[in-house]
Amino acid sequence: RLNEYLDPMHSADIADLLEQVSAPERQQILSLVPGQIDGEVLSELDEGIREEVIATLAPEALAEAVRDLDTDDVVDLVEFLGEDRQEAILGALDAPDRVAVQMALSYPEYSAGRLMQREFVVAPGDWTVGQAIDFLRVAEDLPEQFYHVILVDPAMRPVAYVTLGRLLASRRDVRLGSITEETFRTIAVDLPEKDVAYAFNQYHLISAPVVDDSGRLVGVITIDDAMIVLEEEAEEDILRLAGVSDESSISDGVADTVRSRLPWLMVNLATAIVASMVISLFEASLAELVALAVLMPIIASMGGNAGTQSLTVAVRALATKDLTRSNLMRVIRREGAVGLVHGLVFAVVMSAIELVWFGNAALAGVIAMAMVINLFIAGLSGILVPVTLDRLKLDPALASGTFVTTVTDVVGFFAFLGLATLVLL
Amino acid sequence: RLNEYLDPMHSADIADLLEQVSAPERQQILSLVPGQIDGEVLSELDEGIREEVIATLAPEALAEAVRDLDTDDVVDLVEFLGEDRQEAILGALDAPDRVAVQMALSYPEYSAGRLMQREFVVAPGDWTVGQAIDFLRVAEDLPEQFYHVILVDPAMRPVAYVTLGRLLASRRDVRLGSITEETFRTIAVDLPEKDVAYAFNQYHLISAPVVDDSGRLVGVITIDDAMIVLEEEAEEDILRLAGVSDESSISDGVADTVRSRLPWLMVNLATAIVASMVISLFEASLAELVALAVLMPIIASMGGNAGTQSLTVAVRALATKDLTRSNLMRVIRREGAVGLVHGLVFAVVMSAIELVWFGNAALAGVIAMAMVINLFIAGLSGILVPVTLDRLKLDPALASGTFVTTVTDVVGFFAFLGLATLVLL
Ligand SMILES: [Mg+2]
Ligand SMILES: [Mg+2]
Ligand SMILES: [Mg+2]
Ligand SMILES: [Mg+2]
Ligand SMILES: [Mg+2]
Ligand SMILES: [Mg+2]
Ligand SMILES: [Mg+2]
Ligand SMILES: [Mg+2]
Ligand SMILES: [Mg+2]
Ligand SMILES: [Mg+2]
Ligand SMILES: [Mg+2]
Ligand SMILES: [Mg+2]
Ligand SMILES: [Mg+2]
Repeated sequence: RLNEYLDPMHSADIADLLEQVSAPERQQILSLVPGQIDGEVLSELDEGIREEVIATLAPEALAEAVRDLDTDDVVDLVEFLGEDRQEAILGALDAPDRVAVQMALSYPEYSAGRLMQREFVVAPGDWTVGQAIDFLRVAEDLPEQFYHVILVDPAMRPVAYVTLGRLLASRRDVRLGSITEETFRTIAVDLPEKDVAYAFNQYHLISAPVVDDSGRLVGVITIDDAMIVLEEEAEEDILRLAGVSDESSISDGVADTVRSRLPWLMVNLATAIVASMVISLFEASLAELVALAVLMPIIASMGGNAGTQSLTVAVRALATKDLTRSNLMRVIRREGAVGLVHGLVFAVVMSAIELVWFGNAALAGVIAMAMVINLFIAGLSGILVPVTLDRLKLDPALASGTFVTTVTDVVGFFAFLGLATLVLL
Repeated sequence: RLNEYLDPMHSADIADLLEQVSAPERQQILSLVPGQIDGEVLSELDEGIREEVIATLAPEALAEAVRDLDTDDVVDLVEFLGEDRQEAILGALDAPDRVAVQMALSYPEYSAGRLMQREFVVAPGDWTVGQAIDFLRVAEDLPEQFYHVILVDPAMRPVAYVTLGRLLASRRDVRLGSITEETFRTIAVDLPEKDVAYAFNQYHLISAPVVDDSGRLVGVITIDDAMIVLEEEAEEDILRLAGVSDESSISDGVADTVRSRLPWLMVNLATAIVASMVISLFEASLAELVALAVLMPIIASMGGNAGTQSLTVAVRALATKDLTRSNLMRVIRREGAVGLVHGLVFAVVMSAIELVWFGNAALAGVIAMAMVINLFIAGLSGILVPVTLDRLKLDPALASGTFVTTVTDVVGFFAFLGLATLVLL
């Protein structure tokens, strides 16, 4: 009965279903389909759940499941497994697939080499369309999905490709070399996967040959895998900007969730204490004029939010390569100007509110000045901090928020309480 | 000279170059290539810049530029233009393309109908591979890129498709109906584009036929366009979570940038004032014990950050359809539990810090209790607020942050200052 229900489902949906039930329910479902888990389903599972499921499978069932996967999916399955599990899976593969997977694993994590599959179709450039079609009709072990015939030179270096559409639309005597695509580009095997995803998105690639240092063809990357990386990179930025480890998943339990969030809360506590130490410099002023304690969080909150706006835009523009040396100075000037405009607007609004609320004209002046200072600094630090982190080869998504909000808290409290102490007391 | 430099560049890179220079520089570059702007380049430009460039083009140059684009790219170009510009462009198209673009424009914004192109290849299911190939060899006006031959019934309803790879690998006498793909699925023309992108990503689609209410084929969507939507949706979430309008772009000037950020800062000011009003309830206590003013921002900051972590995870899981009715209760329980764990950890840490700093044992107890309360509420509101907004058909990315941080500010100040007033004074 369960099989009848699962059978018409896409493996990605089965994987989602397994992810969304609790761990005991998952074990129950899996025990009902003994030894039958599909390699495609394994492939679609989130990493955490996948490891849990793999741990329950007999080595033979596991080997059976992965045998028909493309090599890129096998790599994705085994790359973060323990060595014994990895060997069990590799042992189940045919020799050529095993060699291909081992080669892929020899390239750095998160590189093109880990994304590529060895299933591809090549032909010499001097073949005709007819020869290519005849070859494809008799070829065994063609990739399940392929979009190009890659033309290679005698040293197996890709020199061009022909789309299958062009191939089908051309007469049998046409030379492959004469119907190649202008958009042809190769990908270096050690290119970081995020740059692979960028290239697919930027140049609307469908598949691209991967080459090693000597320009030899070692694999092919297809757009569906690049699309997953693109989504993961955006996901990573969203989570990191919020101070959550990018390995977290909605299906994590309490312990994993705490592990993915506590470290950043700890950092935040440290920075909050720094801000409090700034406040404590002005204990005397606070004791004298309690309105300062009431109003000071507003300055800090506005600065934190304006800084977050600015840094988020910068972090994304760095990730999508839209912020470069050629427009950096213009963006910095813009962020400064925007900060000033925001500062002036909210200086007016906030000093009016202060007058209505507390009726203290001098305090209205102080809050206005503090607002201008803090929103200006918020705009500037929102661009300068991520750009600096990026230059230092650190991920701006990971640390910019902490830096910027610390700056805006410290500057905000210092400006507001400091000016108040000078002017009012 | 400029042409020599630009010619070997991909249109997406030329577009990026135009985006990254200043407006006057852009005008200069464009005046050097009079009437020569490529339709592909226009297509790649960000909306704001694109409108600026289109405004400078003579109608004939514009018409010339768009004539060779696929209809989906024409739709993308004209859908947000004024009516006169739109008509000028449509008038330049061949009749079938014009009709196709007009039909696409009749579907809702951000629906599958706006993403699809009319360039596709169909065949009756009873054709053989040989017939299909012979047809493709003589067909004029084939799409530049296509990945399937769509099999249709006599009423033009798609019933299956054949990949070009299968077509090429099969003998001429094989029936198309016998080599179709299992993964075939159609897309309803009014499906929101974000669900289109989800389907492509979830089911690894390369292209999919779009059908109208009666199941008739009206167009085809290809993965490169779905990939762009997927990226835009993630971008939108990132920006909205940070309180930035999703129409903002790194190339915006000061005025546009202020417009995209000021509204949310205004909302934030309102919520910050609410929090300040809570503080002002306890003016007497603050005047008595100034340590309260020093420590209270720490409680609020920790709550805001923990709430942001929780809501960000929830917003993304809603967007990727990983948070559903089947796991919602489990995730709510988890967020509550995680909030309690965080609360207990930071209660211990923070009361220890208080003891060292101020040496007030009762205050240490108060800060510990306030921390537990606020981090628990932060975890719960971080999941409940976005889920509620989603149920109300509002975008959780847009408003969750404001709601949750208002809750954590108010609860944090109220719990800390209230308990302090009860216990200490
Ligand atoms: Mg999944
Ligand atoms: Mg294989
Ligand atoms: Mg991988
Ligand atoms: Mg693949
Ligand atoms: Mg990564
Ligand atoms: Mg990143
Ligand atoms: Mg770009
Ligand atoms: Mg661009
Ligand atoms: Mg056309
Ligand atoms: Mg559009
Ligand atoms: Mg397109
Ligand atoms: Mg959205
Ligand atoms: Mg999913």
